[in-house]
Order: sequence, then structure tokens, then C-alpha cells
Amino acid sequence: MNRYDDLRARALLSRIGEPGNLRLARMVDQIGAATLVDRLFAEGVAGVGRADLAMRMHTVDPERELAQAARLGIRFVIPSDAEWPIQLGDLGQPDTQQECGGGVPIGLWVKGPLRLDQLPRSLAIVGSRSCTTYGDSLAFEIAASVAHAGVPVVSGGAIGIDRAGHRGAIAAEGQTIAVLACGVDRTYPQENAALLRHIGETGALVSEVPPGCVATKSRFLVRNRLIAALSVGTVVVEAAIRSGALNTLRWAGSLNRVVMGVPGPVTSAQSQGVLERIRTGAANLVTSGPEALELIGAAGEHLVTPARAPARRRDALTRRDQQILDAVPKCTRRPADSIARAAGIAVLDVGTTLARLHRGGLVSYGDGGWQLTTGAGE
Amino acid sequence: MNRYDDLRARALLSRIGEPGNLRLARMVDQIGAATLVDRLFAEGVAGVGRADLAMRMHTVDPERELAQAARLGIRFVIPSDAEWPIQLGDLGQPDTQQECGGGVPIGLWVKGPLRLDQLPRSLAIVGSRSCTTYGDSLAFEIAASVAHAGVPVVSGGAIGIDRAGHRGAIAAEGQTIAVLACGVDRTYPQENAALLRHIGETGALVSEVPPGCVATKSRFLVRNRLIAALSVGTVVVEAAIRSGALNTLRWAGSLNRVVMGVPGPVTSAQSQGVLERIRTGAANLVTSGPEALELIGAAGEHLVTPARAPARRRDALTRRDQQILDAVPKCTRRPADSIARAAGIAVLDVGTTLARLHRGGLVSYGDGGWQLTTGAGE
Repeated sequence: MNRYDDLRARALLSRIGEPGNLRLARMVDQIGAATLVDRLFAEGVAGVGRADLAMRMHTVDPERELAQAARLGIRFVIPSDAEWPIQLGDLGQPDTQQECGGGVPIGLWVKGPLRLDQLPRSLAIVGSRSCTTYGDSLAFEIAASVAHAGVPVVSGGAIGIDRAGHRGAIAAEGQTIAVLACGVDRTYPQENAALLRHIGETGALVSEVPPGCVATKSRFLVRNRLIAALSVGTVVVEAAIRSGALNTLRWAGSLNRVVMGVPGPVTSAQSQGVLERIRTGAANLVTSGPEALELIGAAGEHLVTPARAPARRRDALTRRDQQILDAVPKCTRRPADSIARAAGIAVLDVGTTLARLHRGGLVSYGDGGWQLTTGAGE
Repeated sequence: MNRYDDLRARALLSRIGEPGNLRLARMVDQIGAATLVDRLFAEGVAGVGRADLAMRMHTVDPERELAQAARLGIRFVIPSDAEWPIQLGDLGQPDTQQECGGGVPIGLWVKGPLRLDQLPRSLAIVGSRSCTTYGDSLAFEIAASVAHAGVPVVSGGAIGIDRAGHRGAIAAEGQTIAVLACGVDRTYPQENAALLRHIGETGALVSEVPPGCVATKSRFLVRNRLIAALSVGTVVVEAAIRSGALNTLRWAGSLNRVVMGVPGPVTSAQSQGVLERIRTGAANLVTSGPEALELIGAAGEHLVTPARAPARRRDALTRRDQQILDAVPKCTRRPADSIARAAGIAVLDVGTTLARLHRGGLVSYGDGGWQLTTGAGE
């Protein structure tokens, strides 16, 4: 008989362990959270070799943790729950780890009506906090486009590209999820207070750290793996060379998710990181929501119609006819033999062709010469 | 004994045939220009099945053509000449043809001191005539960068990106070549009169059509194959969906040259064609001259140093030290036990770490609390 059941043991470990702690994640995977907690209590530091865990566990009451969270409208979702997003299991693969840590989270603290197991294929949209208006409007448009198509938008709740992505999804009346590096009860960043409240009421706020915890640099880095792992693909809209958003792309790549980047001016510092990823083949270039959907969709599910210029009347002509049409002047009139010379074609051939072009309304005749009709050269 | 030697026969064929005429190119390849001309005179239309050729050849005196060209400072370079750029031989491969024609040119009319056989690996820079200032300045900078590195810039002498490319090469005191769709004696477009004159005096003006000929739409299309074939790679800087510059990229691709595109804002019509080519994998993304040089250079010849943000002091810290540093406040002071709680680390560990960070000048101590020093969090 364990001291705590799986849920309570995970709640305790979530409070005392640092997210992304691989050793902790591995022990939970090997012996289970309840047994690990028992061992911690029985053997103290010697049991797990971590003084900090052993010293803090006595101060934590998981029952109270869960009750306090529930009062704030926050649930604690663990792998055995029906709501657990099974795609996070990919984080258990050893080649997905980074220097900052990794692993399957011990549990997720969730606030909001969106159930994580009912997420259809979702798209992560990430990028610079200090984005340009170019990046802001593109993130918004791409998010609105994919959300309108029924694909939830996952992002990090930050200012800049994250905010634009969340807002685009909301504007399109689609679903959006913010995965935070702090507790889901915290309003951070303060600038996004209204946005985060709205997402907590209509979508989902998700975090690996319990309510009350603050965001730290290392928590941002391991948080990024959840954004990447929850989604089928990640689009980075703007990112300077050393942007945290590129870290999310790396997670997406190591998790075999679809990695995408939106290009921008090569003269923009905020596009340098994205362009570098596209150039080196680490990310696919996308310019719009439909293109991102095509890449993350099942084959044939979302197909982009190739951009095409409108068809022109001269496209229907043979090459020879076009060659003659090219030699017909726009602003003056010229006789057939002069057109023949300019086109490098025998006069006899030119005559019959000009007659045919005349019937097609592409050239007009008058005063002994031929001239293009308006729009014929277009 | 032939009526004309190879040079004169080719000069005649260059005058009466249309550039890119595959049938003509194939006959020249199979029986030689001199024999083909003899057959044209002997058998007339029946000999080659082309009324226009047969009717025009009697009016052309190749001796006079060559003499008139020479008076204008124009030489006619043919495959047997030492100056012939041998890379044009790739145009004889059947899979390089397009709807508009193709094939090895019968000869090249050249004006300018640059010898075509002495071209080192050159780079073609092409793009929209109606470019934006963004594309204009990038084409200029890329051209200046590669020309400065000793790589000649090949373009089409048009306004817009072509002009910016030529001018960049000239500004860097490098070599540049304009391949025209009209005769090299013509000043077309008029806006580039000074530029074309300068290239004719310092670089080379090149055309497949004899002096006096005008540019037509089909001549532009087959001219593009020469730009692509002369160069090791082609960079398109700006091109709308239906830009002629994309045609040059297609030629470059079918000739196994390096195909490159410079990205721009996805909201810019002038970048749509380029982005589409990069997105579909038809072109490599490049953002600068050095990147283009790296792609066209021999392995290791031109290596781009990856863009990196400057190293920061915190990069040298262990992950655990960084985690503690993250918990030290910037604007207030906080005691060690409070920092330990925020970092999720035992107080004992925090004390020794803070002392170490203090020695490193990253944190300061006073009034019973720790605080970041200026710049430590950067």
C-alpha cells in the first residue's frame, strides 16, 4: 500500500521537482510515481540522491494542492486520465532531450473548458516577443486561417507573435491553447491579462508547474517542448538569431513534428533566425495558413491551389502566332511586310496569321497597316 | 567546297533564323553550318522545309554583316573560337529545351573587352523589372559582394533587378555581362543607355541576335537560357508569380545550375514567385552574396560563418547555476531561502552557488538579500 495514489504522488512530485528533470521523469516511468514518493519518504536523500527533493517533500500536502487548484478552476491531468494528450508520450523517446532537460511531464495543470484529449491536429504558432507589425499581422492571419479550418492554435501566451497567434484564433472563433512556463493561475505577462483570462474561459491554459509557480528561463525552455509535442507542427513567424522560438522549432524537429517558418525581409533582424532555419533545410517555408495546413494535414486534406496569374488571351495562341503578334506595333500602324521582317517570318505566313489574329480581335487593320487592339499584348 | 566557311555560314544563319529554333540548331549540329547553308541555296525551301529561311537568305551577305558589326566594335563568337564559352554546350542536351525553344546558339554577337572564355565561375542575378526598393538594394548588395569576390555578375540589362545587379558589380569594380534579347548595338531599354554603354566598354554585351534586331517576347524567353547557361548559378531577387525571371530559374534548373532565390515579405507581390520556388524546393533560399557564393563555390571555397548572437556571461554557467541565477530578483533584494524556494533547490546548495555567482560579479549582496548585478540576466 502506497502513501499516496498515482494522482497525489504526481501532484507532490510536480510541486517539488523542476519541470524537465529527466532523472525524475525516468524514475517515474520506471517505478511509478507512488512508489517513488514512498521511497523518497523512506530513504530520504539516499533514495533518490537529490537533497532538494527530499527536503521539500515534507512541506507539501498533495491533497491540499489539488483542492486549492480545484477552487481556482484548475485540474491536474495525468497520463492515466482520459483527458491526457497521448502525443506527449513522444517526449519519452531519448533522442528528444535537450541540454535543458526533457521527458514526459509528470502531469499538466489545466484551466479552461477545452479537453486536451479532444484536440484535433493542432498547430503551434510561435515567435519573437519583440515582433514587427509584419510578423504580428502574419501570425494573426495564419492563426485565424487555420483556426477557421478547425485546427486549434497552440502558443505560449507571451507578448508579440504568441499573442497575435492566440488572437487570430479567437478572432476566427477557433480554439486556442496557451502553454505557460508559470502556474496557470498567474497573470504573466501582465500585458496579456485579458487575453489569458479569455483563453482560460474559452480554451485552455496549460502548465507543467503547479499554481503559484513563477516562470524562469529554464522553465521557458522545457515549456517549449510541450508546445511542440502537443501540436502536429510548429510555425515560427519571426525569430531573431537567438530567439527562444527557435528552441521550440528544435523540439518540433526532434519530435518529428512538421517544422515551418514564415520568411520575411532578409534585412529584418526579426526574420534572421527563421530564414537561417529555412536556408539550412531545418524548416519548411510557408507563407500562409493554407500552406501550413497542407503540410500538417493528412495527404489531400488541405491542398493549396498554386498561385497563378490570370490567363491571358495570347496564351491560347501558337508560338508562331505569338511571334507575329509581338511584331505588331502598339501605337502606330505597320504594313504586313514590315511586320514579317521584324518577326523574321515569310510575308505569306504573316498575312494568314494576321487575318486569324484579326478575327480573334487581337489586331486591327486600317490605313494600310496593322496595329494591336487594346489589351492584346497583355 | 562550301559556299561559305563556318563563320560566314553561321553569321548568315544567325541573321535569317530565329534564336532558340531547335530544328535549325539540330541541323547545324548534325551537318554543320556551311553544309546547311549550301543545302539551303541548292534546294531552297525543300531543303529545310522553311519558306521564311529560304526567302530571306538571298538578301543576306554574311561578309558585309561581319564587317558592319566589326565597325561597331562587335565580334561574332562561334563554337570553334577560343573565346567560345564551352558551358553553353550544355544547351545541346535534349532535356534542357522549353516550349519557347532552346539549343546551343549558332553564335554570339559580343561587344566589350571581357573575353567570354575567361569568365571564371559567374553568377546570374535576375528579377523583376518592376522591383521594390527592397529588391533593388538587395540585388545591388549581392552583386557587389560576389563581384568583389571575383565572381562576374551576369544579367539581362533590363531595368529593375537586372540593373541593380549590373550596378552592384560595377560599384565593386567587378566584372559584369549583359545578355540582351536585341542586338548589342541597340540601346534598349532607353533608361539603361548609360549603363549599357558602360558595360559595353568595360564588360561584355552579348546577344544571340545580330546587330539591329529588336527584342521580342519570344527572344526574351530564349535569351534567358543563355543567362542561365553562362553562369554556375542563378539568383532571383524579386519575381511576381508570372515573372520572366522565373523562366530563367527554370532554365537554370534544367541545366543543373544552382537555383537560388532571395526571400522577401510574404505580403509583397514581387516576392510571390520567389517564395513559391523556395517553398516547393525548386530554389535554395539565400539572403546574401556570401551565401550564394557558398552554394556555387567549390566545396570549402566560400564558407559562410553561421550568424551567432554574441556570447553572454550566463552561457558559461552550469544549468543548476543558471536556474538559481534566474531566481535572483533584478529590482529588489531577496534572502537566500526565498531564492531557494523560487528556484526549487535546497537552501544549502543555493548558498554556495550564490557565493560563486557573487565572485563572478553576477549577483550582489546587501541589506540581508541578493540581487542581480546590471547585465547579469542578459
